Amino acid sequence: MTDDRLLALLDGTLADPAVPLVRAGDLGLMRGDGVFETVLVEHAVPRELDAHLDRLARSAALLGLPPPDPAAWRRCVAAAVAGWGRPDELSLTLVCTRGTAPDGTATTAFAYGIPVSPRRRQLRRTGVAALSLERGLDPGLVGRAPWLLHGVKSLSYAVNMAATRYVEEQGADDAIFTAPDGTVLEGPTSTVVVAHGDVLRTTPASLGVLPGTTQAALFAAAEAAGWQVRTEPISAADLHAADGVFLTSAGHKVTRVHTLDGTRLRDSSALAAHLARLLESRYPNRAVHSCNDATT
Amino acid sequence: MTDDRLLALLDGTLADPAVPLVRAGDLGLMRGDGVFETVLVEHAVPRELDAHLDRLARSAALLGLPPPDPAAWRRCVAAAVAGWGRPDELSLTLVCTRGTAPDGTATTAFAYGIPVSPRRRQLRRTGVAALSLERGLDPGLVGRAPWLLHGVKSLSYAVNMAATRYVEEQGADDAIFTAPDGTVLEGPTSTVVVAHGDVLRTTPASLGVLPGTTQAALFAAAEAAGWQVRTEPISAADLHAADGVFLTSAGHKVTRVHTLDGTRLRDSSALAAHLARLLESRYPNRAVHSCNDATT
Repeated sequence: MTDDRLLALLDGTLADPAVPLVRAGDLGLMRGDGVFETVLVEHAVPRELDAHLDRLARSAALLGLPPPDPAAWRRCVAAAVAGWGRPDELSLTLVCTRGTAPDGTATTAFAYGIPVSPRRRQLRRTGVAALSLERGLDPGLVGRAPWLLHGVKSLSYAVNMAATRYVEEQGADDAIFTAPDGTVLEGPTSTVVVAHGDVLRTTPASLGVLPGTTQAALFAAAEAAGWQVRTEPISAADLHAADGVFLTSAGHKVTRVHTLDGTRLRDSSALAAHLARLLESRYPNRAVHSCNDATT
Repeated sequence: MTDDRLLALLDGTLADPAVPLVRAGDLGLMRGDGVFETVLVEHAVPRELDAHLDRLARSAALLGLPPPDPAAWRRCVAAAVAGWGRPDELSLTLVCTRGTAPDGTATTAFAYGIPVSPRRRQLRRTGVAALSLERGLDPGLVGRAPWLLHGVKSLSYAVNMAATRYVEEQGADDAIFTAPDGTVLEGPTSTVVVAHGDVLRTTPASLGVLPGTTQAALFAAAEAAGWQVRTEPISAADLHAADGVFLTSAGHKVTRVHTLDGTRLRDSSALAAHLARLLESRYPNRAVHSCNDATT
């Protein structure tokens, strides 16, 4: 078994990630027909696991998959956490596919873990240059076009991956999707958070974005620390006027955007460090080196 | 090995489809990051294989995957065709994923075959009741937003699958996606063709649809038989005014739409049979029972 990746099954056992797991005919593979979550594990703590399992269940319901068994997933995650023999942060992706039967009676489920990449950790420290990319989705359809899978974290992530490759080809680090009218949506793998004065804002799910697990954790910690938190539409102009623009996810933690579409934004290094500390305050067993790298 | 499914590899060998083939970390599985084609094999002839391999190569290029090796794919398809020990039509899906390395240096490729389903064959005979569903994509972005993967047949097909499930839940058989202004786009797994007088029309790729392989074959045969063929925008009103509305794909062949959004369309049974015969005329070794079922 290679030691920098890990595969855990729902019966609580580990398997060799180098050995094929999934049949060619699995609809998760053939059609991107399944759901996932990515959980950050640090100091043996799977962060926000309840929230991730809740979102996995919502995604599964919207995709017509059987409800995930929380006890089995906890067993699986516990096995992964126990089996991770490295000091690195573990990025643990929980996957549930429709499997080989269209009626969902033979789903495939597993957790696959890799270390958080050095590049991701570096970008947490340095911040990112982001490009805004049109997502081309009409927000007016959200809530009345369930077939478009708004708010579902499905395995059909090719556009998200393509957007990330596109901005990297342009020399940038990350993307922020926008609606046709310029309203801020989300990153391909993150939630957008904007700070202005003592207010933190993020985009509402009613615009078709995925509700952020890390963003929700940050907002809970920030609100407890005296911040106002709001879920409301954010305009492109808001990004340029903000005290700070941040991308949040299990992998991003709180990553500041220092440059947007080639324009330098206000320096938010200190604010990023502050928000990162607020987020870290939610987790037990933290040590200096577990704090967001932006603080070091 | 179960005998109603088949797995062929690019070295020209067959493998057991019941044995897992793909690692958990394959990006085709984890992120729908890959491309596919579905080829109809009938009487040992893989139909329109050149066109399918061309489109596979275009999809791969747009996704930043290495160019597929046509010789290897032909070897793989030949092995599948030779190994298919049943009289049924074979629906052969060619899959190429990014594999386990983000840089595409370790892609996964295979062909997976199953019989064309009895339901699909029945719908070719009876025609389908279709619902028009908004796709929510702004056609104005096509050609200037490569990250949206217009014209790429990617593995990220969850929306296509969800649309199909949605219409079936509503008691219909198939869907026709429309643009925000009502312009006809495509089916979730098919191309839309409209007949009016001696003219056949289909939606241009410039609106973000996938150019149809079966539609192109039908148009070539129809043009040779004296039809005018046009690739131009089709309005919702055009569908109701048409002599016939058809869905084409390897699986659909030429399937007529008899009902759209609950409204019965003009009876196009004879026209469907005529177009199906035109399509069949392209393929050697055909027999009476190989003609489109609409003719029987």
